[in-house]
Amino acid sequence: MPQPLNRYKADLREIKFVLFEQLGLAELLQGRYGDWDEDTTNAVIDEVYRFACEMSGPYNAIGDQEPAKLVDGQVIAPPGFKAAWDRVYRDGWKNLSGPEEYGGQGAPHVISAAVEEFLSGSNTAWSMYPGLTAGAAEVISHFGTERQKKLWVGRMMNGEFAGTMCLSESQAGSDVGSATTTAYKQPDGTYKIKGTKCWISGGDHDLANNVVHLVLARIEGAMSGTKGLSLFIVPKIRVGEDGTLGQRNDVTVPSIEHKMGINGSSTCVLQFGDDDACLGELVGGAEHQGMRQMFLLMNFARIGVGIQGMAIASTAYLNALEYAKERKQGSSIKNFKDPAAARVAIIEHPDVRRMLLDMKARVEGIRMLILKLAIHQDRADSLKGKDDAGAAYHTSQIDLLTPLVKAYGSDQAFRVCESAIQVYGGAGLTRDFPVEQYCRDSKVFSVYEGTNHIQALDLVARKLGQNAGAGTQAFLGDIAKFCAANKDHAELGVAVANLSKAHESVAGTAMQFLMWFQGGQMERVPLVANRFLEMMSELAVGWLLLDAAAIACEKTKTVAAGHPDAAFYAGKKAAGIFFARNVLPGVVNSAKIIAAGDTSPLDIPDDGFATV
Amino acid sequence: MPQPLNRYKADLREIKFVLFEQLGLAELLQGRYGDWDEDTTNAVIDEVYRFACEMSGPYNAIGDQEPAKLVDGQVIAPPGFKAAWDRVYRDGWKNLSGPEEYGGQGAPHVISAAVEEFLSGSNTAWSMYPGLTAGAAEVISHFGTERQKKLWVGRMMNGEFAGTMCLSESQAGSDVGSATTTAYKQPDGTYKIKGTKCWISGGDHDLANNVVHLVLARIEGAMSGTKGLSLFIVPKIRVGEDGTLGQRNDVTVPSIEHKMGINGSSTCVLQFGDDDACLGELVGGAEHQGMRQMFLLMNFARIGVGIQGMAIASTAYLNALEYAKERKQGSSIKNFKDPAAARVAIIEHPDVRRMLLDMKARVEGIRMLILKLAIHQDRADSLKGKDDAGAAYHTSQIDLLTPLVKAYGSDQAFRVCESAIQVYGGAGLTRDFPVEQYCRDSKVFSVYEGTNHIQALDLVARKLGQNAGAGTQAFLGDIAKFCAANKDHAELGVAVANLSKAHESVAGTAMQFLMWFQGGQMERVPLVANRFLEMMSELAVGWLLLDAAAIACEKTKTVAAGHPDAAFYAGKKAAGIFFARNVLPGVVNSAKIIAAGDTSPLDIPDDGFATV
Repeated sequence: MPQPLNRYKADLREIKFVLFEQLGLAELLQGRYGDWDEDTTNAVIDEVYRFACEMSGPYNAIGDQEPAKLVDGQVIAPPGFKAAWDRVYRDGWKNLSGPEEYGGQGAPHVISAAVEEFLSGSNTAWSMYPGLTAGAAEVISHFGTERQKKLWVGRMMNGEFAGTMCLSESQAGSDVGSATTTAYKQPDGTYKIKGTKCWISGGDHDLANNVVHLVLARIEGAMSGTKGLSLFIVPKIRVGEDGTLGQRNDVTVPSIEHKMGINGSSTCVLQFGDDDACLGELVGGAEHQGMRQMFLLMNFARIGVGIQGMAIASTAYLNALEYAKERKQGSSIKNFKDPAAARVAIIEHPDVRRMLLDMKARVEGIRMLILKLAIHQDRADSLKGKDDAGAAYHTSQIDLLTPLVKAYGSDQAFRVCESAIQVYGGAGLTRDFPVEQYCRDSKVFSVYEGTNHIQALDLVARKLGQNAGAGTQAFLGDIAKFCAANKDHAELGVAVANLSKAHESVAGTAMQFLMWFQGGQMERVPLVANRFLEMMSELAVGWLLLDAAAIACEKTKTVAAGHPDAAFYAGKKAAGIFFARNVLPGVVNSAKIIAAGDTSPLDIPDDGFATV
Repeated sequence: MPQPLNRYKADLREIKFVLFEQLGLAELLQGRYGDWDEDTTNAVIDEVYRFACEMSGPYNAIGDQEPAKLVDGQVIAPPGFKAAWDRVYRDGWKNLSGPEEYGGQGAPHVISAAVEEFLSGSNTAWSMYPGLTAGAAEVISHFGTERQKKLWVGRMMNGEFAGTMCLSESQAGSDVGSATTTAYKQPDGTYKIKGTKCWISGGDHDLANNVVHLVLARIEGAMSGTKGLSLFIVPKIRVGEDGTLGQRNDVTVPSIEHKMGINGSSTCVLQFGDDDACLGELVGGAEHQGMRQMFLLMNFARIGVGIQGMAIASTAYLNALEYAKERKQGSSIKNFKDPAAARVAIIEHPDVRRMLLDMKARVEGIRMLILKLAIHQDRADSLKGKDDAGAAYHTSQIDLLTPLVKAYGSDQAFRVCESAIQVYGGAGLTRDFPVEQYCRDSKVFSVYEGTNHIQALDLVARKLGQNAGAGTQAFLGDIAKFCAANKDHAELGVAVANLSKAHESVAGTAMQFLMWFQGGQMERVPLVANRFLEMMSELAVGWLLLDAAAIACEKTKTVAAGHPDAAFYAGKKAAGIFFARNVLPGVVNSAKIIAAGDTSPLDIPDDGFATV
């Protein structure tokens, strides 16, 4: 076993900038969040980062090299995972935004989202155990009966019990409505569950005293498809009404997957009711509400995947940056005629700077998008009942941005990790540095919690037109307002012009989708949905990066030369300009490609793909 | 250990199409290639493919899971590797184009390149041992003295001895001129070598009786930089003048790397002369010619890396295609309103078709580029001394296309493998299918044999302007000719128009580089060199795919409906159209981005990248 060693890095200054200088968190905190103020927030950010560097981060490579393993039907988590699990709950870092009745600390969602970066980024595999537990607890606290809340939620929020989400079956992955796991109602109102689920992250482990599975199953006789599914609480170990642990439930683990990455996270096949003795209870006592209930967890999880992507990309970027500052190779291009010129750190090479700035812009822009989504939640909560139109605006943005955060965040994570390896060169491909693991760990993000194509379909077929397109129009309106206000910006004008063009392209393409829907040309939609999701994500990211750049331009005026903030703000400006000038033109290009309407993937005969 | 299991696939019909229907190999064969005709070629292709499926392919996953290991200072290759090594030499598949005096079979280079796909793609890690051996043998046969040729080349071509190339040192990777390994001349004309090399692929193993290292070192007192380097033959075991194996040379293996991929290939640190007893001989007896000599090997290896990328991408594509035809999930979009509609194979989903066609186009286009490069070599050889201008044209295209093949081939390999995983979904991330290994194995291609940025610099700073730009002009002229001939093509007209625009963009950007060089704006060049390499590669690939599509349109006219060729040619047409309409517009976009001249990566202060 390798020695515990932390390679995790996060840029706290940047996170605090987004929260307080860009998103106005201080104003939000003046109100319903009790003791939470800027100082508390900053202190919590510092502390959770310390936790990540000391408790979860040092076991990241260990979890990769000593994966979760199945021993006599029980999954054993990697070394160090249990200590980090116990500590994260003892310190309360998984429950910052939870309600106080369950031991939560009543913080805004945006603070939870901000510190979740440290948990996900320091040790992605480890963080999935508490992450899924939090999601499952949220579902029960939302839809459960009072008895269920009392029995399960508190113990899932303090780490005594863990949780999972059990949707997939071998024939029912993306097509979840094909699930055949069946629930048979018993005279006492409980259900016997029978079926096999697969791809269950954290499906078993030894971190908690119990694992509470949320299982999607069809009550015997219910209709086919997603509408016939119900959601069940199925514990690994039965729990009496007084809370005491009883006998094992009939849930077994025949196998776990051997994967490309996140090896410390167990990915289980789970068999329910092999001996006809698997008991479950219906969430909230409501039949056939499984998909609606599960969607709460899925939306939660999708944002979580976006955070995973950004978090791992961020530490990949910061590690590559450190290496680029230390590693000497070659001489400066300024001395290209002099073979005896001094060797320089590779950060001096233009192509390395280009890769680093590209990574920086993507990481920081996606973080802004995530935290903006999270603060929409807090603003919607605070306006609810007082200003319903205002609350509706914020809710519409959450709906619209969730697929972008999940899909763009995950796709770009893999890209950024790839670039990080390239900055290192051969060294980046070895276990001596963390980036090859980051790259492997990040690939699953584009697949789980709904593949990125499912996110794209969610965007174009559901979210774009939701409430007669109100959310889309508000989103485009916000960007148009920014463009109008900054089109003559002395330093950012050219970049803002690119943002305007991208905005126009996204708006035009959205109309194109509407026409296809109206014209019944359904096949065109999935063909370009991924491309459109990328366009819209890049528009959003470009906007937020330029918004940050504009703030930086203002703030720079009052910063003394030589103060570290001078370089910090110059960095923000460069990231906005880089993205606007090197990435946003691609949005315009994509709009043209979509408008040209190529259908070759539909035209090619199946036998034309290959002769094998 | 897993059981040997072949997952390798190649599309032989496609390869034969490129050779005979697109590149006119049959005409080339009417002349200087002895018995080589179309039937022989096809039979050899079939046989080497069979070798790949039976001998190397079954041990690909095994080499990944039971990596090359260092035991008591000796590298042990994975199970199955030795049998495949012996057989590939017994059957003569590594020596098809070699001269007959060394047991070669005198085939054109293009046939060697075509079958190399099977060796590289079936088991990349294994294929590197014979691949590097062939390259090292080529160098000695080219630059060695008669005595050296006699002593080494034959045995390296029949697999008795293996070979390596030893350039890198820890402080001298991309900056090879910083190498400090030193050669001390002995009274008998041999040299004592002293130094440490790293990243040596196949640096040690147990497949052959000896390993012949080609070592770049500086003769004591020679000038600094690349011009002071010489190339030495340094065997693992000394060989007497009569060819008998003598005592061990002073070459040791202190460690090997633990890597993300190609785990079956040993990546060694090599120590030369730790006991002051490492003897080497100067290649060709010529001092300070090391870089020039090594470049022959590097160009050979760079094309080889392009083949590795294409080969692994091809089998990733074909495996994903097979899975897409078998795996059922969801119903057809045509029945989206009917939840009870039949489940379909995922190849029916438009987004899966889009991914598959994208992969197909990239794989096939890059293969065309590689085989075109290889046949340029044969045409140059056949014209030499008869038509020197014609030969010069072909040579110029080899020079120009080599960096494209290496860099674009490797970058796209990783992309295609990523898409292959996405087609599989979660299954693709497990060891149950080969694509996650392909993805890991392919990452190194963008790094070794000169990083892809070094390829881009080679292209823009050396190749573009070589011989007053003659090669570049000929390349652009060939494409212009194709565009003119096909601009009114009934089926391909729109696609050809996109090719014309891409052509114009590449030509314009090439001029831009010239202006920067002339204006001394050197820093601009590396900043956009990678983007330009991609533009030019996509132009080349788009051209060749449309060339193939045009041939397919012609051939279709004479194919009976229902004949398998009808679907085959329809596939070629779709690939050309897809690439032209979905990828080539990006070339135009890139030209605009380069012309806009963003310098943000140069402007950002080092401390502006992050606050950590």
